[in-house]
Amino acid sequence: MKQITLEKLAELTGSTFSGNKDVEISSVASIEKAGQGQVSFISNPKYKKLLKDSQASVVILDADLASEYKGNSLINNEPYLTFAKVLEVFYKDDDSRPAEIHPRAVIGNNVSIAEDAQIGPNVVISKGTIIAAGVKIGAGCFIGEDCSVGERTTLNPNVTLYKETRIGRDSIIHSGAVIGADGFGFALKKDKSWLKILQIGRVEIGNTVEVGANTTIDRAALGVTMICDDVKLDNQIQIGHNVHIDKHTVIAGGTMVGGSTSIGKRCQIGGAVAIAGHISIADDVVITGKTSVIKSISKLGVYSSGTIADENRKWRRNSARFRKLDEMAKTINKLKKHLDG
Amino acid sequence: MKQITLEKLAELTGSTFSGNKDVEISSVASIEKAGQGQVSFISNPKYKKLLKDSQASVVILDADLASEYKGNSLINNEPYLTFAKVLEVFYKDDDSRPAEIHPRAVIGNNVSIAEDAQIGPNVVISKGTIIAAGVKIGAGCFIGEDCSVGERTTLNPNVTLYKETRIGRDSIIHSGAVIGADGFGFALKKDKSWLKILQIGRVEIGNTVEVGANTTIDRAALGVTMICDDVKLDNQIQIGHNVHIDKHTVIAGGTMVGGSTSIGKRCQIGGAVAIAGHISIADDVVITGKTSVIKSISKLGVYSSGTIADENRKWRRNSARFRKLDEMAKTINKLKKHLDG
Amino acid sequence: MKQITLEKLAELTGSTFSGNKDVEISSVASIEKAGQGQVSFISNPKYKKLLKDSQASVVILDADLASEYKGNSLINNEPYLTFAKVLEVFYKDDDSRPAEIHPRAVIGNNVSIAEDAQIGPNVVISKGTIIAAGVKIGAGCFIGEDCSVGERTTLNPNVTLYKETRIGRDSIIHSGAVIGADGFGFALKKDKSWLKILQIGRVEIGNTVEVGANTTIDRAALGVTMICDDVKLDNQIQIGHNVHIDKHTVIAGGTMVGGSTSIGKRCQIGGAVAIAGHISIADDVVITGKTSVIKSISKLGVYSSGTIADENRKWRRNSARFRKLDEMAKTINKLKKHLDG
Repeated sequence: MKQITLEKLAELTGSTFSGNKDVEISSVASIEKAGQGQVSFISNPKYKKLLKDSQASVVILDADLASEYKGNSLINNEPYLTFAKVLEVFYKDDDSRPAEIHPRAVIGNNVSIAEDAQIGPNVVISKGTIIAAGVKIGAGCFIGEDCSVGERTTLNPNVTLYKETRIGRDSIIHSGAVIGADGFGFALKKDKSWLKILQIGRVEIGNTVEVGANTTIDRAALGVTMICDDVKLDNQIQIGHNVHIDKHTVIAGGTMVGGSTSIGKRCQIGGAVAIAGHISIADDVVITGKTSVIKSISKLGVYSSGTIADENRKWRRNSARFRKLDEMAKTINKLKKHLDG
Repeated sequence: MKQITLEKLAELTGSTFSGNKDVEISSVASIEKAGQGQVSFISNPKYKKLLKDSQASVVILDADLASEYKGNSLINNEPYLTFAKVLEVFYKDDDSRPAEIHPRAVIGNNVSIAEDAQIGPNVVISKGTIIAAGVKIGAGCFIGEDCSVGERTTLNPNVTLYKETRIGRDSIIHSGAVIGADGFGFALKKDKSWLKILQIGRVEIGNTVEVGANTTIDRAALGVTMICDDVKLDNQIQIGHNVHIDKHTVIAGGTMVGGSTSIGKRCQIGGAVAIAGHISIADDVVITGKTSVIKSISKLGVYSSGTIADENRKWRRNSARFRKLDEMAKTINKLKKHLDG
Repeated sequence: MKQITLEKLAELTGSTFSGNKDVEISSVASIEKAGQGQVSFISNPKYKKLLKDSQASVVILDADLASEYKGNSLINNEPYLTFAKVLEVFYKDDDSRPAEIHPRAVIGNNVSIAEDAQIGPNVVISKGTIIAAGVKIGAGCFIGEDCSVGERTTLNPNVTLYKETRIGRDSIIHSGAVIGADGFGFALKKDKSWLKILQIGRVEIGNTVEVGANTTIDRAALGVTMICDDVKLDNQIQIGHNVHIDKHTVIAGGTMVGGSTSIGKRCQIGGAVAIAGHISIADDVVITGKTSVIKSISKLGVYSSGTIADENRKWRRNSARFRKLDEMAKTINKLKKHLDG
């Protein structure tokens, strides 16, 4: 267990401090639960009232809050970012397992695995794949032919990469994610049966990307489905074939993105959103949870759709009226004309 | 194959009966399909008309329906519950596999496995984990470090538990479920890139919980994501970090629950619902399918949102009008004022 | 690498051609990216403008577009279908792995595996299961007891089939799919706890069906959950117990289908749709993405619901008005009466 003084913590995180420079910290907890030897944080001023009862040895605060606080504080105008850094100080790289290829891993011909990679039990790596230095592949992962996994990227257990998938460095793929499965493409035959469009493209994932548990990213029909650097995808997301998601965009859980859609840089997309195929979303667009996007969005801004939970009795009446909304509007226009005229 | 008389079935399920006490039953089927030697049920009086053509040897009925029925009936005022009990009589515990740790399982150091547990092929159990009596772990499951799995709990094949996950007794986890993956937390840096907030909490699941196939439950950022006793989660559900779901609550498929949200006791939440993060839902709340919940619900009741499927041509007109609803409302107010004035 | 002349390609796909019959083609690319030796296609006339700059050696066109085009063309009035056939010519059956049961597969008693089946590493096949000729089972798949998998069907890696699941011939199941998990059924006890309804039915999947990555299909409570021939299911779909989906129906990603619902032939259902349980959808119905279907649809047509993404500021006002829509409608009716009267 690490023991770090307040003074040292300030140095490691580029912060200042107030209080006892020698107080020792060994772990992190929430402001309500933190006790002796623990550091906590307040980044949102609305939780300020929790400060006076906190038993934390140190609290991360911005300068304003710190000036009101009598206990030990680690002072930084980005307290949440500082909290993230403090977590890294205490908890990062606690994985002390030695590099190894587990004897129960199955490695195909012509596979290149860097010496310090960790390959877990029951991992299957198919021929032609390249595993870079510092990579960790969890138990039960399947990696198809001709894939590549970049430096220090982690595949948690039970991830599936179809053939030809490329992942950059320092990325994290969570369990149950399936990357590179066939896109959904069929041509209708005269007899109304479907002919599969073979999906011969692939998936490419950049650096410092995170892909959530049970998220699926389909291979392109032709070409590449592209997830650029620093994109963060939550759990249970579906990314269709030939989608392009640009740098720094984050998408919350359960969002569906239709094929061939392009999403810009630094977008923030909520959970349970549905984005149609073949459209494009501009840079810096924010889309709130549960929104349905069926047309391109070309201007930065915050976008929403849907209706808000209401008592079922009221909702039934209102949603019934929605089905007559066009008639209502026409009636209003007539009434207005009548009165104006 | 079990053969059980009507009299015995009444005794085993705390019911009475009418008809031939010696009629033998060996299996269960739906009211339309049941034939000789089979028991069926009607719990909803609207299916009463199916009774007269049924070929079932015995039908589970409430006293009212039984009084109208000339065939053999198993009589109980909770026919659906009785049906569930009858299913248990015929079908429970038909798993006769002996306890074993399959030779293809990979067991880490310092793992404790009760003698009568069943550990399937290709299971990986990491160091420090405790597996209690009567537990069944299906093929290909991965269990991280320092987990615990309580008495008689079943993990179906290909479940993933990240480190430190705790599951109580008599719970069932279905295939593809991922429990304990990182919550979705990132701090924005000045250069617009994201710094991962290490997720150092864990998931705790109570007793007699069911977790559906491909459902994901994220570990807490700090502290615990809590799924209390007798909670039932369907397939494809996402539970964010630090969520708390209280006893006896049921959630149907595809529902997304945002981080730090708290859901009360005995709630019934439909499928494809989206519940925002950082809110709370009171005890005994019912939320119908596809609803979007963005604010806390503090009063028991039935809640809904959304609009209802309509012909596309009509829907296009109505949904276009929705985008002008505020203007419409203002016009109405003006007209009203004009006329009132 | 195959080299095929334009003349030969016309013959193989039942098309005519114009231009140099001897031009050699070896691969397929999109109209913007195709170069020498590559064939591309235009099926939608709105992309016609891309034709004049294309470097493709051959373009698949209908007769109208071909008459305007000076380069080599493969001419067919169903260009998209012809494109699908051309992909098959170049890319189908490139899997040259020999038939084998991998030494790391675990095969139960009384399992029948056809001689030319491919069974990957870490596959578990439980007792009583039948694997037909030409079947491929990818690494890490789990197949429960008494299943059957028909001729030439492929299970990609990490698929889970619960016991008694039957799959027809020429079907494709993608990674992470879970077929045959328990349906979601519980009976409420007096103490407000839940008694599980044992799910004793099974799943049956027809011929030439495709099931997407991480899609879940629950076993029936009693009887059969049925996915008929030529149904195509995208990723992340949930199919409840006792659902019946008839031939040629396609469903896009993330759609939830409630238990006991029946969907007709040749339906086209968009992504992120929610379909309630216990309803029926007629043949040839089209449902657009994100729609909520809570009542049966008995007439063919296109159906939709939902509202469309708008600026958040406007949406907030409009969605607030939605909650008063019934009152608005009543006010309009009064005003109308007042003026008419």
